[in-house]
Amino acid sequence: MGEAPSVQKEHILCILPFPEPTEILRNIQKKHPQVEFTYILQPITASRAWNTDAKDIPDETFKKATILCTLASLPSDPKLVPNLKFIHFFSAGIDHVRSTPIYKDTVIPLTTSSGIHGPQISEWVIMQMLSFAHKEKLLLQLQKEHKWGKHSEFGQLKDYVGQRLGVLGYGSIGRQTANVCKALGMDVIAYTASPRTTPESKKDTGYIVPRTGDPDGVIPSAWYSGLDKASLHNFLSQDIDVLLIAVPLTDETRHFLGKEEFEILGKKNAFVVNIARGSIVVQDELIAALKKKEGGLRGAALDVTDPEPLNKDSELWDMENVTVTPHVSGMGTMYLERSFEILERNLTLLEQGKKLINVVDRKRGY
Amino acid sequence: MGEAPSVQKEHILCILPFPEPTEILRNIQKKHPQVEFTYILQPITASRAWNTDAKDIPDETFKKATILCTLASLPSDPKLVPNLKFIHFFSAGIDHVRSTPIYKDTVIPLTTSSGIHGPQISEWVIMQMLSFAHKEKLLLQLQKEHKWGKHSEFGQLKDYVGQRLGVLGYGSIGRQTANVCKALGMDVIAYTASPRTTPESKKDTGYIVPRTGDPDGVIPSAWYSGLDKASLHNFLSQDIDVLLIAVPLTDETRHFLGKEEFEILGKKNAFVVNIARGSIVVQDELIAALKKKEGGLRGAALDVTDPEPLNKDSELWDMENVTVTPHVSGMGTMYLERSFEILERNLTLLEQGKKLINVVDRKRGY
Repeated sequence: MGEAPSVQKEHILCILPFPEPTEILRNIQKKHPQVEFTYILQPITASRAWNTDAKDIPDETFKKATILCTLASLPSDPKLVPNLKFIHFFSAGIDHVRSTPIYKDTVIPLTTSSGIHGPQISEWVIMQMLSFAHKEKLLLQLQKEHKWGKHSEFGQLKDYVGQRLGVLGYGSIGRQTANVCKALGMDVIAYTASPRTTPESKKDTGYIVPRTGDPDGVIPSAWYSGLDKASLHNFLSQDIDVLLIAVPLTDETRHFLGKEEFEILGKKNAFVVNIARGSIVVQDELIAALKKKEGGLRGAALDVTDPEPLNKDSELWDMENVTVTPHVSGMGTMYLERSFEILERNLTLLEQGKKLINVVDRKRGY
Repeated sequence: MGEAPSVQKEHILCILPFPEPTEILRNIQKKHPQVEFTYILQPITASRAWNTDAKDIPDETFKKATILCTLASLPSDPKLVPNLKFIHFFSAGIDHVRSTPIYKDTVIPLTTSSGIHGPQISEWVIMQMLSFAHKEKLLLQLQKEHKWGKHSEFGQLKDYVGQRLGVLGYGSIGRQTANVCKALGMDVIAYTASPRTTPESKKDTGYIVPRTGDPDGVIPSAWYSGLDKASLHNFLSQDIDVLLIAVPLTDETRHFLGKEEFEILGKKNAFVVNIARGSIVVQDELIAALKKKEGGLRGAALDVTDPEPLNKDSELWDMENVTVTPHVSGMGTMYLERSFEILERNLTLLEQGKKLINVVDRKRGY
């Protein structure tokens, strides 16, 4: 076939904290010969993990770029990037760039890596649910002590068949978790910001890792929606055994779950899993609910905390019914490959003059 | 409706290590008013866990029984139980009673609890697969030390999408594990003793916990069979990432997997999970394969060992890539309920003059 004459040359500027994945880039160039890459390795440092500052990038480099791939780094002034057709973020959320001029003052399409984390993060979620229910902490401790544990310590274990998963935020992670939980014999209910009443509206329109997720939104036995308290409380009242927090952090979802919400969840002693952002919950009130002898939460698994890293003296570290991990649920070797897969798909859509996938809705905030 | 005059009185003798589950028994009597229970609590002691000796049960009690429910205890002489219509075992395997007179010298139907462990044990399997792949041991250690781990320690994690599960013994546990692994995005291949070439032969004919398993046997992308070495090796050569050992222990499967088999599995550095019986593998040769720097196994999760309890000084306890748990994968609150559900179903089938479910094939050995 060769290069179609109508296809425009694309200069893709990557500012990423990973070593250049030469094979992945080469494969993209094979499919899109009009593409040229400039790859800048910008290591993550504690002080600039989610820092959007890209002062060290020469103006000329920015100017030439027609597509920018980045985790956080952005030109401070939109004038520096007159040729940008879109910006592809290697993160699923974009709350860290929401106050930048690029976000606020331009209409440059922003695409996210939302969807690539589905399998990896949902595996972390399932692991935490099972580890809690099957007393993995105790099992590992017994092994360390070369002790063959007594069966009486495990007689009260309960598998998840017939239990209910509530997914707060039915995106790619929620859908894949739902998919696995359904296989575990669980019932699933879903919550979304806006109502999904038609089959069309229930579909996942973003990137989906093949063989995973709930593309058509057919798994939940019931759907709930609404960002107001009453709607949220209605959802939380549905006898939820495990609540998965998977909503993006926005002004509406900051401190979305506090004392009142944990009281509702406490009626069924729900297990709470947070893989979204720490500040979606009021952390002190979560801790209080976890410590309650009656009507509290059975436990929590938190991959995100407020702040991060979690304070050395936080009570969460030592709570028997809590697992804290250092925001690693999405870490894995498939991350890069899948994020570039979204970029590649959008290159194709751009060439075809079609709508890109995974585009941020600036008004909605994700 | 009331009691049908044709239905015979049944005297069910339970010799079990659990306190009498009065509500479960009452519910059975509601459905089967002709049934009468004698419940003998026989606690498990280290010396008699799988001991079949029932000397402490009065002859008169045995004589009256038309159905016996037991974990292991059996009358030493079949003459003591002239009225038995069947014996229901609360274990999935019956290798521990295979040398008893009841097994060898009678044709009394023996039914097992095979099937009830599907969800509970497969949850343990999935937990172990995920804990290994997501470095749960390290995560828990970091939490213990109040340490926010470095992302570089987790960058090489790999989710299970596209990986292959090999199920050695496609029974209820294998089927439910396959069901969950498929939801994780994995490919599944199945191994059975005898060939399953027709859709009918692929079906699960035993008890299945509702909403779980693979009732029609439609999940595996390929089926393998044959108890001979060549057939086994052919199955093990199919690029298996995770091998689940779920075959019953029989003369043919004792030491089924040793040096040669682990060498084949080592080509893909398979992860080995054993929830069946410790002596299905040659334990020393498993340990050697786990210690190999190249061409060995990536790790193992063992709920069963040889012997049990595992020797205090076994190397397995301290191996970084091994998890050992004290034969607890099937422990849980649903155990009793589901085992009595099989008994109840067989009571109904007996009344209707139909074939019982979960009957042991003495020739096959399970």
